[in-house]
Amino acid sequence: MERVFNFSAGPSMIDESVLKKAADELVCYDGKGMSVLEMSHRSAMYMDIYQEALALFREVMGVPEGYEVLFLQGGATMEFSAVPLNLKTEKGVADYVDTGNFAHLAAAEAQKYIKVNVAASSREEGYVRIPDVSAIPFTPDADYAYITTNNTIYGTRYRKYPDTGAVPLVADASSNILSEPIDVSKFGVIFAGTQKNMGPAGMAVVIIRKDLLGNPGPMCPKIVDWTLQAKNGSMINTPNTFAIYMVKLVCEWMMKRGGVPAFYVYNQDKAELLYDYLDNSKLFKSPVDREYRSLMNVTFVTGDPDKDAAFVKECTKNGLLNIKGHRSVGGMRASIYNAMPEEGVKKLISVMAAFEKENA
Amino acid sequence: MERVFNFSAGPSMIDESVLKKAADELVCYDGKGMSVLEMSHRSAMYMDIYQEALALFREVMGVPEGYEVLFLQGGATMEFSAVPLNLKTEKGVADYVDTGNFAHLAAAEAQKYIKVNVAASSREEGYVRIPDVSAIPFTPDADYAYITTNNTIYGTRYRKYPDTGAVPLVADASSNILSEPIDVSKFGVIFAGTQKNMGPAGMAVVIIRKDLLGNPGPMCPKIVDWTLQAKNGSMINTPNTFAIYMVKLVCEWMMKRGGVPAFYVYNQDKAELLYDYLDNSKLFKSPVDREYRSLMNVTFVTGDPDKDAAFVKECTKNGLLNIKGHRSVGGMRASIYNAMPEEGVKKLISVMAAFEKENA
Repeated sequence: MERVFNFSAGPSMIDESVLKKAADELVCYDGKGMSVLEMSHRSAMYMDIYQEALALFREVMGVPEGYEVLFLQGGATMEFSAVPLNLKTEKGVADYVDTGNFAHLAAAEAQKYIKVNVAASSREEGYVRIPDVSAIPFTPDADYAYITTNNTIYGTRYRKYPDTGAVPLVADASSNILSEPIDVSKFGVIFAGTQKNMGPAGMAVVIIRKDLLGNPGPMCPKIVDWTLQAKNGSMINTPNTFAIYMVKLVCEWMMKRGGVPAFYVYNQDKAELLYDYLDNSKLFKSPVDREYRSLMNVTFVTGDPDKDAAFVKECTKNGLLNIKGHRSVGGMRASIYNAMPEEGVKKLISVMAAFEKENA
Repeated sequence: MERVFNFSAGPSMIDESVLKKAADELVCYDGKGMSVLEMSHRSAMYMDIYQEALALFREVMGVPEGYEVLFLQGGATMEFSAVPLNLKTEKGVADYVDTGNFAHLAAAEAQKYIKVNVAASSREEGYVRIPDVSAIPFTPDADYAYITTNNTIYGTRYRKYPDTGAVPLVADASSNILSEPIDVSKFGVIFAGTQKNMGPAGMAVVIIRKDLLGNPGPMCPKIVDWTLQAKNGSMINTPNTFAIYMVKLVCEWMMKRGGVPAFYVYNQDKAELLYDYLDNSKLFKSPVDREYRSLMNVTFVTGDPDKDAAFVKECTKNGLLNIKGHRSVGGMRASIYNAMPEEGVKKLISVMAAFEKENA
């Protein structure tokens, strides 16, 4: 069977060369006589994999010294509670910028543990833009300020990040991590689920400035405790050993292709093809403010739900899968992460053009 | 490379036929043109896998109606906090039976959220036995009573389970789930990490009597909230999709081989071979009370740390890996889960016999 182009928002495409390598060594890893799935997480052979994954991720992401990198179970959603549980001090207030569904959910979860101040929101406008970061009235002595760098459902992204001064900036970068350069040194914490640009589901990578460790709340479950996890190399219990291994393979593949700078160029090119088509289409249009368009999740609509449904069907027939928009917003969404080939985007455009010809 | 016999306590052996099937379809699952690693967890093709995994697990485990089965990230350690966070009522007391390292850790974690009463403990005796369950003074109106059915590090297991009447019995069955029949209807909750008898690391299976749902504490992170997870089919966020798929493959393999009853016979046979050898050895001995010997984790010592170390080396040379005991107790440990072939146990015994001849 030929590979399809999978436009899923996550889990999402993994490069075929990475999958083939994983398949080739799934029964017997590197002459060890066992699968990576069977390795004790404390064994020397597994620790080699773990250390390589960690070093490679740090290199690809450009994580400076002074930051810990954790590989934790629970995905980004677990981190929604981890953030206040680890960062709350006697001040007890955090700023949230509400730019989409996941930002909203993160704020709701944080409210269990800390006073949440919604410093800015584009919710009323249907999340079609990011608030002007220079105009956001951040709380000067908040425990942290929280943003979502790319909004998977709505298809928006920050073009520049707010300067919150001494207040640590915390970012959920699940849907654009490793797709464009991010200056880690501007952040207190960056976390991201692995299932979009880093590998399979079942893990989050958490990057934490070391001075922010040491303050877990008394009600913090130990598995959510960044300080304890940092002291134990992400292994207070058995981690998702396979996901860590897959992050290693994905980072190796990225390095071979030129790392984040090369993917950033590639991702801009892919997105531009699609946005250019949308801007010139008489049928399809992007609902998102031009200034804040995501490079990873390109949302579009015809304005007619029946035509949307017919188009999704047409895509499926042509091997373009999971193009349907999130159930909360409808329309279409093409998630074009690092592993989506330009060929996939071009094929999508050709199917759009043919559909437009018949339906405009 | 020939496969080694991997005696790791977990992650641990997975049958080669299961690994081969996973490897064969890792690039392209069942003609779908994508890997299971790439599938949206909400897609029809993945939901088929999820539903099959769930139905098969229920069948193999013999989960009666009236119980929910959840597939959750975080492993058993996450459940150490989940148990009190989901089961605490205004009573606010839970009984713990301390029979080993993980029981001890579970009680320590629970103390963050509930008053813990250690109803019985074999800690002072070095955990070499399980307390007599009929003599344990359980609290009549506790929120729950907690046990660990098999103690991985010390190599003990319950031979019968306590009757706690109306108080829900909660069990961590991580290291013997699916290895022997367990009457689920006697329990309020059973949970287990997947990395010993069910597949790779990065997930726990949680079985909950439905009437125990509906009471999450206000500080319960949403990902730890059994009620919310049950309402959402374990998908309040992206689950560990690969681990769920692997549980499906492992359950299929178990069904083909006769299910839990067949493995129980096989496991008893394997353990008997090893214990018989130990009981007749002049060099090696089992430190565990005969009555409570685990079928899954067989611990043994020579009494001389240097000989222990030399023996571990000899095993490694012979393709018998991870035979070293847990760092907290020393000696040796042979973890012989479902997927350890009898051939592996026999080879271990032959290496022990040869070593004994030279070193007794």
